[in-house]
Amino acid sequence: MNNSPKFAVIGGGSWATAIAKMLCVNQAEICWYMRNQNAIDHIKTEKHNPNYLSSVEFDTKKLKLTTDINEAVNYADILIFAIPSAFLNTELEKLTESLNDKVIFSAIKGIVPETFLIVGEHFHKKYDIPYENIGVITGPCHAEEVALERLSYLTIACADASKAKIVAKNLNSNYIKTKISDDIIGTEYAAMLKNIYAIAAGMAHGLGYGDNFQALLMSNAIREMKKFIRKVHKMKRNINDSAYLGDLLVTGYSVFSRNRMFGNMIGKGYTVKSAMMEMSMVAEGYYAVKSAYKLNQDYGAKTPIIDAVYQILYESKDPKSVFKKLTDKLD
Amino acid sequence: MNNSPKFAVIGGGSWATAIAKMLCVNQAEICWYMRNQNAIDHIKTEKHNPNYLSSVEFDTKKLKLTTDINEAVNYADILIFAIPSAFLNTELEKLTESLNDKVIFSAIKGIVPETFLIVGEHFHKKYDIPYENIGVITGPCHAEEVALERLSYLTIACADASKAKIVAKNLNSNYIKTKISDDIIGTEYAAMLKNIYAIAAGMAHGLGYGDNFQALLMSNAIREMKKFIRKVHKMKRNINDSAYLGDLLVTGYSVFSRNRMFGNMIGKGYTVKSAMMEMSMVAEGYYAVKSAYKLNQDYGAKTPIIDAVYQILYESKDPKSVFKKLTDKLD
Repeated sequence: MNNSPKFAVIGGGSWATAIAKMLCVNQAEICWYMRNQNAIDHIKTEKHNPNYLSSVEFDTKKLKLTTDINEAVNYADILIFAIPSAFLNTELEKLTESLNDKVIFSAIKGIVPETFLIVGEHFHKKYDIPYENIGVITGPCHAEEVALERLSYLTIACADASKAKIVAKNLNSNYIKTKISDDIIGTEYAAMLKNIYAIAAGMAHGLGYGDNFQALLMSNAIREMKKFIRKVHKMKRNINDSAYLGDLLVTGYSVFSRNRMFGNMIGKGYTVKSAMMEMSMVAEGYYAVKSAYKLNQDYGAKTPIIDAVYQILYESKDPKSVFKKLTDKLD
Repeated sequence: MNNSPKFAVIGGGSWATAIAKMLCVNQAEICWYMRNQNAIDHIKTEKHNPNYLSSVEFDTKKLKLTTDINEAVNYADILIFAIPSAFLNTELEKLTESLNDKVIFSAIKGIVPETFLIVGEHFHKKYDIPYENIGVITGPCHAEEVALERLSYLTIACADASKAKIVAKNLNSNYIKTKISDDIIGTEYAAMLKNIYAIAAGMAHGLGYGDNFQALLMSNAIREMKKFIRKVHKMKRNINDSAYLGDLLVTGYSVFSRNRMFGNMIGKGYTVKSAMMEMSMVAEGYYAVKSAYKLNQDYGAKTPIIDAVYQILYESKDPKSVFKKLTDKLD
């Protein structure tokens, strides 16, 4: 890959919009794919995404907007996927262009529901993309704060450090600091697991547990995450680095997190179905917990929080009594 | 020490009131010392502490209230100190009773300003109390949530496990879970250091940094805390246990934390002096950071957050530019 690769952003949501904004600081042009033609028309005339981070003004000369994902794939050397994991498979089925030689970075942070794989594994196993061409962009980072240009730190993980560096360099700005990592599996699992813990935090809140318990829960969650990821992919990592602990905290403590809101509704007595309908979209952690729970049948890590969330969401267990039992397993 | 020791609580504030409440679940009688005779009179007639956690109702038959600290020392086998560290020395100067053979648990979480020692070290060095008779009661635990009987977890640390167990057993209830630890130095340093990080979190907020940075700061703070405590007292400990990480989070994320409020005012442009006057009381972290900074001149741990808070509070450096430099040292 040359030193001035071309970028495409796949997705029209808030995180995709934030990434497009970051790239535009450093790139003369990027391709930006989204399904919604109305949104594209609006961006072209009004310079704002009408639906997400609408305060962000774009220099439209820099944007090659398209509703054709194949155009974006054809255009770019590096594709950054930032769509909900639930839509990834549908989007990829539209592909006629080959992904060979493309570098794929996931900013998705979830499980592909059809395969129950994390995104990197999905591309590797279903599309034969070598791991050297797969990367992860992870937080702690709410898109809304990127819009406000509040200082945020990203971790860019790739087995091939030179590719991580290129992506990092192109996301850097006076409000974005980046670091690189070679832990592509661990950072992506952390990003996926934290959504489960955010659901647990929401459930606890909904059930009436307070801030003391929330801190206790997060302290247990990071220890559980460490054990789980260690089983998936053992390597030297500091679980308290910002890509793991920081990402857990920014989500677990956010009242705006969809996963936390979903958990909160369940804790307050909504059924899973009615909570989903209320939110009009499934929280990523809903898929993540099923995958994590199933995987752990083989790994055998002690994961009482994941188990509790699984029992409530998939075995219709009563949140109150599941949490009562959970509190005896935490310390 | 026999298996049914007598307890005295030293202090009339919210944390002392919470501890008195916890003990009353398990003890037929406790002695409770506070300076304020009006508060004692009020508790005797109205069953509530008028100034702190006034929703908590006491069974006054269980309370032996006194304004004489010597009466409390004489009464009890186990003394639990829960007063601001700034007042400890003044209180101890009133002692005519000996502390020999007394077991002393600190619920103070701060530095004694006159000696710049943590409370356990202060008792050990100034009063020749052996470390086997010194313990620590630590969170994550806001007193306000104890008043509401919201589930909270305490860590009881003592070099002598049998004493830790006795204190733990007597604090236990259906809303308090306890675990014991032998890391008396580490837990107390963690409780003291977290106040510095809460000041830093407040400063960041006051300066306009957002939630992404807050998560990043906490992720760096726990790594810094680990390095610092390792220098003070090297032993096997999991820094993500609730006594360390949990305690950091419950304070660092609390908008009610005095330390965070103090930092917030400094970040917003108050001078140190005016922030102190505004709060009418000094935040524990103000002393803690001086002590930690000085100690670290010998230890040489990399502590950019402690250094930044010290420079702002004690060297009159500009918060904005100190934090700008700090952001380059975090990751």
